[in-house]
Amino acid sequence: MNLHEQLNWRYATKKMNGTAVPQDKVDYIIEAARLAPTSSGLQPFRIVEISNAELKEKIQPIAFSQSQIVDASHLLVFAAFDEYTTERVDKVFAQQEAERGLPAGASNEYKGMLMQNFAAQSKEDHFNHAARQAYIGFGMAIAAAAELQVDATPMEGFVNAQLDEILGLGEKGLKSVTILALGYRDEANDWLVNLKKVRTDKSEFVIEHK
Amino acid sequence: MNLHEQLNWRYATKKMNGTAVPQDKVDYIIEAARLAPTSSGLQPFRIVEISNAELKEKIQPIAFSQSQIVDASHLLVFAAFDEYTTERVDKVFAQQEAERGLPAGASNEYKGMLMQNFAAQSKEDHFNHAARQAYIGFGMAIAAAAELQVDATPMEGFVNAQLDEILGLGEKGLKSVTILALGYRDEANDWLVNLKKVRTDKSEFVIEHK
Repeated sequence: MNLHEQLNWRYATKKMNGTAVPQDKVDYIIEAARLAPTSSGLQPFRIVEISNAELKEKIQPIAFSQSQIVDASHLLVFAAFDEYTTERVDKVFAQQEAERGLPAGASNEYKGMLMQNFAAQSKEDHFNHAARQAYIGFGMAIAAAAELQVDATPMEGFVNAQLDEILGLGEKGLKSVTILALGYRDEANDWLVNLKKVRTDKSEFVIEHK
Repeated sequence: MNLHEQLNWRYATKKMNGTAVPQDKVDYIIEAARLAPTSSGLQPFRIVEISNAELKEKIQPIAFSQSQIVDASHLLVFAAFDEYTTERVDKVFAQQEAERGLPAGASNEYKGMLMQNFAAQSKEDHFNHAARQAYIGFGMAIAAAAELQVDATPMEGFVNAQLDEILGLGEKGLKSVTILALGYRDEANDWLVNLKKVRTDKSEFVIEHK
């Protein structure tokens, strides 16, 4: 299947059957998000991988009690940096320089420009920018799951602050932005599975300047 | 190639050779973004497809004079809704109901909940939420380009307000968020092409709760 066929195969699974996704497939899905491009290669997000049953049960009530939270075998919580600190940015460029065999400090000019830019922004601006980068990885994880025919439900319906609290994200400088629930569809009990995928017409979706 | 191989093949091309990407490939890349999932299926973004040479030249100076802006055959500008208006949301659900053969108004309860939620948020919150959805489609477009071995450079380095002005996005209720430049790498003149792809180690990128 090509990407179009994969995207047409997938849907936001509403009812999962409890079957566990094999760990190698979960790893593949996460790796796609890790390989995703991000602004200046900063990768300002992390993935919290949750298969622990008790933890999923604890999360369900703060996610409108949606069934996928516990019927999915794995939850991937995408959590973005709450701020671009000098320490965080330095670390990324130091790793780039080291792995590319460049002299330490080779990126200093670019990094200085970047930090000047961030300094002019609020902490909220930083987080919003970081969250967008997380969504690129989120997209790649969705594509990867579809490639493997693993069902994946994108879920934004949860109380972010409470999830951050449960997962101890604040102390890590992270804030949850979205969840991808991984599992397998329960076709007999999913109201959405047979409904047509609806998208804005191309004529409206695309504005052409030829 | 699977998605991992495609993501490892791609890189943020810094120098393109001017060769035009065939229209059917551009269409495939856009279609992947159109098929991308978004929150409640709202698809709160549009793609401005630019192949017009004069327009690309007009954009280059507000994009730090980066060469890809003119050497790419196509620029895809991802532009997000500046606000979730009742009209916009109504239109999405009316289309869903019609195409799914549901009675008009079948989604009213869900839609009411959604609009109540949006009513409690600022226009800026709406835009930030819409922008994140655009980045899912952005991710899919990047994956689609890699699948076709079309080079694609994600570009956030431009003056958004000026691009909105040039493209007349404000009157459409849209704000530019990011650009994907499509073309083909000029291997001999691209400083990045042979540098190692660097990513945060998996041990740091993933936080496990098993």
